[in-house]
Amino acid sequence: MPRFADLQVSAFLDALANPEPTPGGGTAAAVAGAMGVSLLMMVAGLAKSRSGSEVERIALSEARAVLSSVRDRFTTLADADSVAYQQVMAAYRLPKDTDTEKAARKVAVQQALTAATAAPLETLRASGEAMRLASVVAEHGNRNAVSDVGVGIGLLQAAADGAIANVRINIGSLQDESFKTSASTDVDTISKRIAADAAAAKQSLES
Amino acid sequence: MPRFADLQVSAFLDALANPEPTPGGGTAAAVAGAMGVSLLMMVAGLAKSRSGSEVERIALSEARAVLSSVRDRFTTLADADSVAYQQVMAAYRLPKDTDTEKAARKVAVQQALTAATAAPLETLRASGEAMRLASVVAEHGNRNAVSDVGVGIGLLQAAADGAIANVRINIGSLQDESFKTSASTDVDTISKRIAADAAAAKQSLES
Repeated sequence: MPRFADLQVSAFLDALANPEPTPGGGTAAAVAGAMGVSLLMMVAGLAKSRSGSEVERIALSEARAVLSSVRDRFTTLADADSVAYQQVMAAYRLPKDTDTEKAARKVAVQQALTAATAAPLETLRASGEAMRLASVVAEHGNRNAVSDVGVGIGLLQAAADGAIANVRINIGSLQDESFKTSASTDVDTISKRIAADAAAAKQSLES
Repeated sequence: MPRFADLQVSAFLDALANPEPTPGGGTAAAVAGAMGVSLLMMVAGLAKSRSGSEVERIALSEARAVLSSVRDRFTTLADADSVAYQQVMAAYRLPKDTDTEKAARKVAVQQALTAATAAPLETLRASGEAMRLASVVAEHGNRNAVSDVGVGIGLLQAAADGAIANVRINIGSLQDESFKTSASTDVDTISKRIAADAAAAKQSLES
């Protein structure tokens, strides 16, 4: 499978639109996150900051460096999500004629679903880290780029919501109760922090 | 300028992240819309629909065809938004040493800002048309693809919100009151319909 980041935008869109199950929503969410982070990087990299102070310039420069690494995580996760889902489908296609086959298939499906839950959980974590930095960029970034920061925040929220939808759908088929509880708790904790950081960022944009 | 759809995804992300003002949030919003539409096209193109009825299959097939044309509009708008913003910047750079130059510059800036408002307004309209189709796909699409439809809806909402932010920022610098009023009314009308269609679509996904 090619890395999605290496595809042309038009070919990536065609791959999403194709009835084949991958790439799907999990990959699209990760790419949306990478787009949102890229807009924040643009604003953090502008020559003029909000006040023009040196302290502010350093805060934005540091934010831009961390955002760049978060963007790399998103592009890696775009691929990881599709690979994980392909493994789920491969597990479901295993033979189930004998009791031994049935038992082996069940274990393989559960392992694949666990891995397929880990990918969107990581996308959610990356969205959380990016949203924290969005509040820094919103506070200190050039006022002329307010709408770019706003679009970036919207894309990160779409990435987070998409990741949550994918975690929940996989959890529904999982049997390991302790993993399910842990994943659900992570989703709740991170999504609350994302909502708070998004609200803080939007308030900075309006002030 | 290359068509953004022709760039590699990684090069498009780099272009967004670059401190150069284009491509910015308006282009990112249009590409997010194209991604959301692509996910809906995938679900509308699946061999299995929700009930499996022939009527449903036809509704999804028709939705997919219209979604494909909306996607083309989004990719065209991704380019149009950047071109329009470059023309705004070019107008602001016109000389303003004499009264004649000042008057000519003012007209050029207002014309360019009007065109730069038209692009995100069109992105908003395309998001509205796509969200209407999202409710069709949510109602009739295969239950196994619920999360893909959900991510698609989130991306369309991000595209719409991004477009609205860009319309509003341009309107702020415009002087033609009748155009401003008409654009604001359009934003209100379309965004209310989008919210209603998104709510209907989400309800179908949960039922």
